[in-house]
Amino acid sequence: MSVTVTVAVDCMGGDYGPSVTVPATLAFLRDHPAVNAVLVGREEVLKPLVGEAAGRFGARLGIHHAEQVVGMDEPLVSAMRGKKDSSMRVAIEQVESGRAQVAVSAGNTGALVAISRFVLKMLPGIDRPAICFALPTTGGHIYAIDLGANVDCTAEHLLQFGIMGTVLASVLDHSERPSVGLLNVGTEEIKGNEVTKKATELLRASNLNFHGNVEGDDIYKGVTDIVVCDGFVGNVALKVSEGLARMMATFLREEFNRGPLSRLMGALSWPVLRRFKRRVDPRRYNGAVLLGLRGIVVKSHGSAGVFAFEQALARAASAASDRLVERIGDRVAAITGTHEERPA
Amino acid sequence: MSVTVTVAVDCMGGDYGPSVTVPATLAFLRDHPAVNAVLVGREEVLKPLVGEAAGRFGARLGIHHAEQVVGMDEPLVSAMRGKKDSSMRVAIEQVESGRAQVAVSAGNTGALVAISRFVLKMLPGIDRPAICFALPTTGGHIYAIDLGANVDCTAEHLLQFGIMGTVLASVLDHSERPSVGLLNVGTEEIKGNEVTKKATELLRASNLNFHGNVEGDDIYKGVTDIVVCDGFVGNVALKVSEGLARMMATFLREEFNRGPLSRLMGALSWPVLRRFKRRVDPRRYNGAVLLGLRGIVVKSHGSAGVFAFEQALARAASAASDRLVERIGDRVAAITGTHEERPA
Repeated sequence: MSVTVTVAVDCMGGDYGPSVTVPATLAFLRDHPAVNAVLVGREEVLKPLVGEAAGRFGARLGIHHAEQVVGMDEPLVSAMRGKKDSSMRVAIEQVESGRAQVAVSAGNTGALVAISRFVLKMLPGIDRPAICFALPTTGGHIYAIDLGANVDCTAEHLLQFGIMGTVLASVLDHSERPSVGLLNVGTEEIKGNEVTKKATELLRASNLNFHGNVEGDDIYKGVTDIVVCDGFVGNVALKVSEGLARMMATFLREEFNRGPLSRLMGALSWPVLRRFKRRVDPRRYNGAVLLGLRGIVVKSHGSAGVFAFEQALARAASAASDRLVERIGDRVAAITGTHEERPA
Repeated sequence: MSVTVTVAVDCMGGDYGPSVTVPATLAFLRDHPAVNAVLVGREEVLKPLVGEAAGRFGARLGIHHAEQVVGMDEPLVSAMRGKKDSSMRVAIEQVESGRAQVAVSAGNTGALVAISRFVLKMLPGIDRPAICFALPTTGGHIYAIDLGANVDCTAEHLLQFGIMGTVLASVLDHSERPSVGLLNVGTEEIKGNEVTKKATELLRASNLNFHGNVEGDDIYKGVTDIVVCDGFVGNVALKVSEGLARMMATFLREEFNRGPLSRLMGALSWPVLRRFKRRVDPRRYNGAVLLGLRGIVVKSHGSAGVFAFEQALARAASAASDRLVERIGDRVAAITGTHEERPA
C-alpha cells in the first residue's frame, strides 16, 4: 500500500466488542505502517484498552467518542432512529466526511447495511447494498454476492449484484471479463424459482459475461469468477460452510486421537496438518465488503476473535487503497448507463 | 429386517443409468437376503446386465419392462404427460399397486416429485411432498427437510415440513418430542424474509417442539433434531456441503503430497486418514426420502456410483421395513387432526 489509508473501527460492535476490536486494531497498526485508525466508541472504555499504545502510534491512532451502542439483536428502527450517536453510525460517518476511507464493523448486519445506506447513499443505478465475500476454491477464489444484506431479492437485484461483482472482480483481479454464475438448484435454465428464472433472462440479456446457472457444489469448484444469489440463500450457504468445515476439523482431530498409535501419527504429521488447518481456517476469510455504496464498509463476522478481526481490517485497508468505490462507480455507470450529476 | 421387502428400482434414471443401478442392486441383494428387487426399465438393456444373476436370485429378482426414459433435464410436462410408460413412473406404480413397498430413483428430481405425487397421492393434511435427508452432525445426525422438492414455499408448507420431520424422527429414532429448528439468517425472531417470519409464528403456535430459528452452522452442530427450510435453500445448502467436503479432501491430499516427508507421513497415517475419509464420504449419505406421500420413494443423487446407489437402496429397504408410511400417516393425522376416509 503506497498511500496512507485511515480505517474507522466500530469498536463496540460484535459479540466481544472492544476486548477484540481494540487489540486487533493495535496489532494491525503495528504490522501495517501505512494504515492509520480511528477507534470509534465509548472513550472511557477504549482509552484504558489502548493504554500506552496511544503514545507509540501518535497521530496514526485516534479515538472518536460515540455514546451509544447498537445491540447485536436490536431492531432496525431503534438502531436507525434512536441511536444517532452509535459507534456504528459514527464510524460510517467518518467515511462520509472523508476523515476515513473505510469503516469496519462486526456489529448487527441489518443495522450496518441500513445505516451505511442512509449515511453513504447508493451509487447511481444500484438499489441496495450487497455483501460480497471472497471464498476459497480448489484453484483460487470466487466472489459470492449477496451473502446476507437482502433477504427478499427481485430479479433486478440479482442482475445488479452481477454488475457489482463483475466490477469488483475486474478491479481486484484485473480480469477482463469475469464470468458470472447464478446460484440455482440445477444448471438447466428451466430450473429454479420465479425470481431465478426471471434473473436468468435479465443476466442473459445484459452485457455481462453470464455463464448461466451454477449449483451449490460449483462454488468451491470455482466454475465461475462470481456467483450471484439472494442474501438469504447466500447467508445460509456461508454459514453451512463454516459449520461443515468446523465439523470436519473435529472429525479429523478425533481420528488422530483414537488410540496411542493414531496420536503418534498425528504428532508426526503435525506440520502437514497445520498447513491444512491454515488453508481451511474460516477466520482467515473474515471480512466481507458492502458493495453499491458511495463509500467502503467492511463487515466482520460478529463472533470474530482478534486474529479474524485483523483479517477484516486487512481486507478493509486493501479495498480502500485500491480506490474501490471510485473505480466501481465509474464501471457501474459505464455498464448501467447512469451518470452521476456532480455538484458544480 | 424381519419381513421381506420389495424395492422397485428405476434402472434408467441417473447420470449413469443401468450401468450403475443394475450392479448396485445385484450387490445389494447379495448382502441383504430379506430384500427382493424389481428392476424397471428396458428389458433388452437390463437382461444382459443381469446375466447369470437371474438364476442365482430366482424369484427375488424381477425385471419389469418400461419403454420410456425420463431425461435428466426433461421438462416436467413432457415427463408427466408424454411418458406414461417411463421407468420412473412404472417403478412408482409398483409401490401404488403393492407389488413393491418402496421405489428408488436417481432420476430428475422435479419429475420424480411430480410423478410420485400424481401416482401415489398425498397424505391427508399435507399439500406437497418434501425431500428429507439425514445429515451427519458432530454428535449424531439431523433430518433436514426440504432439500429440493419445493422451490417456492409458503409458511404453511414449512409448518408441514416440521410436522413430517417430527414424525420421521420420532418413528426412526424413537424420540418422544424431537426438536424442530427453522433455518434462517439469524436466531432472533425478527430475522429473515416474509415467509420465515410467518413460519416462525405458525411453528410457535403449533404443538411441535419448536426450538426457534437456527442458522446454517447450527445444522452440523446438531442444535436441533430436525431443520426445516425452503427446498431452494436446502438444495443449495446440501450441494455447497458436498462441494466444500470435496475441496477439503483435496486440500488434505495436496498437503500430504507436498514433498517426500509429507508423503511418508501420509502413508504412515493412512489408517487414520481412511477412517476420516470414510466419515466424511458424501456417498455414504446418499438417499433422501420423499415425505408426505401415501407410499415411500427414495431419491438417489443423480451422479451416484455403484457404492452410493447401494446406500440409497439400503435407506429404501430400511424405510420400507419400518412401515414408514403407515406410521407417518397415523401421526400426521393425529397432529393435523385430519382423518382419512377409508373405503368401506
